[in-house]
Formats: sequence, structure tokens, C-alpha cells
Amino acid sequence: MRYYNIAILGATGAVGQTMLRVLEERNFPVDEIRLLASPKSAGQELEYMGVKYKVQAVSPEAFEGIDIALFSAGGSRSKEWAPVAVEKGAVVIDNSSAFRMDDDVPLVVPEVNPEDVKWHKGIIANPNCSTIQMVVAINPIHRAKKIKNVFVSTYQAVSGAGATAIKDLEEETKAYFEGKYYYPEALPAHIAFNVIPHIDVFLDNDYTKEEMKMVNETRKIMHAPDIKVSPTCVRVPVFYGHSETVVIETEEPVTPEEAREILRSAPGVIVEDDPSNNVYPMPIDVAGKDEVFVGRIRKDFIFENGLSMWVVADNLRKGAATNAVQIAELLVEYELI
Amino acid sequence: MRYYNIAILGATGAVGQTMLRVLEERNFPVDEIRLLASPKSAGQELEYMGVKYKVQAVSPEAFEGIDIALFSAGGSRSKEWAPVAVEKGAVVIDNSSAFRMDDDVPLVVPEVNPEDVKWHKGIIANPNCSTIQMVVAINPIHRAKKIKNVFVSTYQAVSGAGATAIKDLEEETKAYFEGKYYYPEALPAHIAFNVIPHIDVFLDNDYTKEEMKMVNETRKIMHAPDIKVSPTCVRVPVFYGHSETVVIETEEPVTPEEAREILRSAPGVIVEDDPSNNVYPMPIDVAGKDEVFVGRIRKDFIFENGLSMWVVADNLRKGAATNAVQIAELLVEYELI
Repeated sequence: MRYYNIAILGATGAVGQTMLRVLEERNFPVDEIRLLASPKSAGQELEYMGVKYKVQAVSPEAFEGIDIALFSAGGSRSKEWAPVAVEKGAVVIDNSSAFRMDDDVPLVVPEVNPEDVKWHKGIIANPNCSTIQMVVAINPIHRAKKIKNVFVSTYQAVSGAGATAIKDLEEETKAYFEGKYYYPEALPAHIAFNVIPHIDVFLDNDYTKEEMKMVNETRKIMHAPDIKVSPTCVRVPVFYGHSETVVIETEEPVTPEEAREILRSAPGVIVEDDPSNNVYPMPIDVAGKDEVFVGRIRKDFIFENGLSMWVVADNLRKGAATNAVQIAELLVEYELI
Repeated sequence: MRYYNIAILGATGAVGQTMLRVLEERNFPVDEIRLLASPKSAGQELEYMGVKYKVQAVSPEAFEGIDIALFSAGGSRSKEWAPVAVEKGAVVIDNSSAFRMDDDVPLVVPEVNPEDVKWHKGIIANPNCSTIQMVVAINPIHRAKKIKNVFVSTYQAVSGAGATAIKDLEEETKAYFEGKYYYPEALPAHIAFNVIPHIDVFLDNDYTKEEMKMVNETRKIMHAPDIKVSPTCVRVPVFYGHSETVVIETEEPVTPEEAREILRSAPGVIVEDDPSNNVYPMPIDVAGKDEVFVGRIRKDFIFENGLSMWVVADNLRKGAATNAVQIAELLVEYELI
């Protein structure tokens, strides 16, 4: 068996640290692990397989001999360093939005479009967290019944905005009980006991960039250029786990029971749907898990062929780190490295 | 000027106490105020206009001489005591769901269907909180452009489930930081740093009763039996203020700017919609206010004639107490008592 040299850029971040845990748990065949970050974060120590590793400042030399580089350090760092890593011979799996819509970069969710890794030219993009969990849940139904339209409203955890946003929620909630004022550092407004209809920046059409990711990335991942997505993305005071209300219109009729059957045999999906016994997925229950959880499947009242559902997943894991490591596993499986 | 004898049944509850505040603030012409509750809560003292009043146990005699009885003590108490109060000569404005869909009970949102108070037979129903704020926001557009379909996902505050649910969120959040376990008393699951896709009980069609209220009450209030509503109701860790993502399909085309114009001149609506300056309504900002706040108005991607928007209001005030007091004001204005 071959072992691989893996670099993580952004190793000290919320996603970077989760990547380390997921590599461990899934026993990825790692030869050398190299933890990289901005000079500011260099020098910190992180554990991998019981051994402490010092985080190094990113540099061209840091990618020397690396087979796979997992990037999660933001779009501008990806743009700067991905070409460098590729030039040094690494395949980059990039968690930022920098390359996702580039025509020569595959955008991959292994349960949906694994074969797309095969045409990579050095960079493979990891999709947006809200989009990943939605496509894992709806693609099996699309394959069977063809989806035309998707209405989605999100309930997104602060961890999707990084480690500082986790601190924002924690410190602001504590301050609330102490009667103190806390000024959020990473989020655009107060998040304790509040919800914020604003994730990523606003664009000219008055949608946010996060919302447009759901519109555009869904089509690219599912190879379904005609699917229309109507999204609203909202931040909620939850640490881990994004939730979504999803209403789909299909071309062919599909009953809730048929949809449950399709999803029960779909890869990476767990159906938790027994409302009479209060069984439905919730973020506190899915935190730390790798699957996409679907519940509250029922007939929609508006579309003749419509279904309503509730989709929950750990945004740091399936929405980011786990999906990236699964892409790395595909590279091994297809012998692309 | 005439003054009226007012009773509040459920005076010690979250809505009951807000009713007292709203009567004060709006200078409702109160002669006598009588605070009623279950025998368990009797004896507590509440302030009105600077004077302390003792809460009395509800009894038939307690409604003697009362002109208007504001009820917010749950459906079974409403069913028990509303006929008694009416028999004693009071008009009952009932905040529970007990009578809302009865054909001989008007269901009134004063900004939408004020005239319906005129045909009351003793009981007037106050609608569901999520429905009130939605119809205040969409009815003006319906009158101008005719709405066919409404997709709505809610982000509902715990105060909608009463005072014990407020305690659940507060105590459970504190327990989280102290590493302790707290068992929720009023909510069906843990609410601290979580969201729960379950409000009121589940029905045979796998929708919740809360969701079906939005479907059915909307039609009755707006006199629009053909409007279809597709709802998902979700509890979020917010104390005060319900938020909603709302997508509407209209028969006639309507641009976001036209919709803003219509809503700017609509009763009880405040448009807060300037995304480029991070202006959109949020629950922490609307708590304590009586209006319905609308923002993020934009073109929908799915419907040819579609609009997406974000609607926020204080569920204890416009969603309950304020709407009930406004109904009482209509009774005075129309000289119906």
C-alpha cells in the first residue's frame, strides 16, 4: 500500500483542525503530515495520531514533496498558494470559493459526482457547506424523478464563519448573562439570541454571495444546468451543524414514502423521519457526524409534484473537512496520484 | 369619552403581561382592570399604571360587569371560559387557537380585515403569531398584485411557547457554560445552541399544527381561499421576535422596488431594506416594537412573478398582545361595545 505526503494550509482554523481529525478517523494512508498556516499562526502545535506537530509558515518550499494539499485558509490565500502547490507537484483540494466556478476545476461531492475528480488539472474545489448537504440529499431524488425547482432556507451555524465566529457566539452569550456588551469580531451583527439574514457579502442582485453559491454550485455539482434554486441564507446561534428547509418540485411524481426509500439507500444519507415519535434531525445531534440527515419528508402543498424536507449536517465535517478528505480518498481509489 | 372594564385571563403569562403593558402604552380607555388566572397563579401581584393589582382565580363571577375579556391562557381554558364570559356580557378576544377556524368567529388582523370584527357573536379570535406578521407583510401586495403561492420558513422565538420556554432557553444556556445538564420543561427538545423543526403537535399529514395554522388562518384572514401556503416552522434560540423567509408568487408582475413602495405606505409595516449598508430587520432589533419589519426584498429565481423577502416582528406584541388590543380598539372605534 502506498502512503502519501499531506499538507494542510489553514491547519489552525476550524476546518483545518477538523481535517486533521477526519484524516485520523478515516485512517487515510498518510506518510508525512505537514501543517501550514500564515506566519501569524506559525509555531502553534497541533496533534496528529498522538504526536505533536509544529505549524509552519506557508512558503513555496513547504509544498516540496507533497502529494495532496488540503487548503482551507480563505479565497485570497488559495489564489496565492494553489498555483504554487500545483507547480511543486501537489494536487490541491481547495475549500475556498476561489476556484469553484472555474470551468477547468472540478467541484466535487463524492456521493454526487465522484467521476469529476478524473479531469482535474491540479486543483479540485470543495463546495460550499450549505450546498454540499443539500445536493447529497436531493441528488438521489433528482436521478430518479428529475428536480426542476428548489426553495431553500438555511439555519447556519457560526462555525461556518470560522473559529472567531465560534468565539463571537460564546463570548457574546456569556456577556449577555453578565450584563456586559460584546462586539462581534467575525459576524456582521450580534448573534447571541438573534438570527442574521446575511452570510458572506451582498451582491448587486441583493442576494448574498452565499446564496448565489447555492444557486450556481448546485447546478455544476449535479450536472443539472436547468435546476433553479431560490435560497435565503441565515445565520443562527448554533455552534455546529447547518439545517435547511428544502422544498423541491420534480418532473415526475414522487410520494414521501418513495422519497424515504430512495434516500434510505442513497450514499451518505441517513433518514431520521418519524414525527409521531418526535424523530427528526437537529444540529446538536448531528455535530461530529459525517452523514447528511434528512427528516420531515412530506407532500408540499403548492407543487403538484412537490416534496418538503428538513436537511441537517455538520458543516465542518460533511460541509467541509470530511468532503475534502473523501475527495482525497477518490484520488487514491482512482489512482490519480 | 367612555371607559371600559377589561379582564385579562392568563394575566401572569408571557402574553398576558405584555397585554397589560400594551394597554398602558396605547392609553386604552380602561375603567377597571381585572387580572385573572388559574387558581395556581392567583394571588400574584402585577402592576398596571403604577398600581399593584392582585391576580384573582378565574370564576363566572369574575366576568361580571366586564366589557372586554382578553384571553391568553391556552385553548382548553378558552373553551371552558369564553362562553361563560360571553354569557356575562363580555366580548372575548381570544389568543388561543380554540375558535380561530369556527365559521361564526371572526379571525382578525386589524391592518388586514378590520371590518370582520363587526359580525362577531361574542368571541373574536386573535390569529397565530407567525401568521399575523406574514399577512401584515403580504396582504398589501396581494391587494395590488394578487398572490397565488407562499413558501414560508420560520425562525420562531421561544417566547412563543410561553414563559416556561423562555426559562428553558435561559437556564439551558447557563447550564451549557457550567457544564451542567438541563432538561427542557416546555420545549420538545434542547434549544440552547440548537434549532427544533417542531412547533405544536404533529398531525396526520406530517405537518405540525403550527404549520397548518399558517396554511388555514392566512386564507381566512385575507379572505383568499385560493392562496396556497407551504410552511415549515422552526424554533430557534431567540427570546423575542419571530423571523420568516417568505417567497411569494403573484398573478401580476411586481418588481422589488414596487413592492417596497407598496409596503412603505402599508399600515403597520416598516421597510428596512438596504443590504449594501447591512440594513435588514433582526429579532433583537424589533423586540418591544409593534410593527412588522420587512427587508431583503428581491426578485425570486423560480417564479416569473416572484418575490423573496424577510419578515420580522415581536411575537409577543404584534404576534399576540398588540394585535389583541388593536382588536379591542376596533370595538371601541366601531362602537360595538
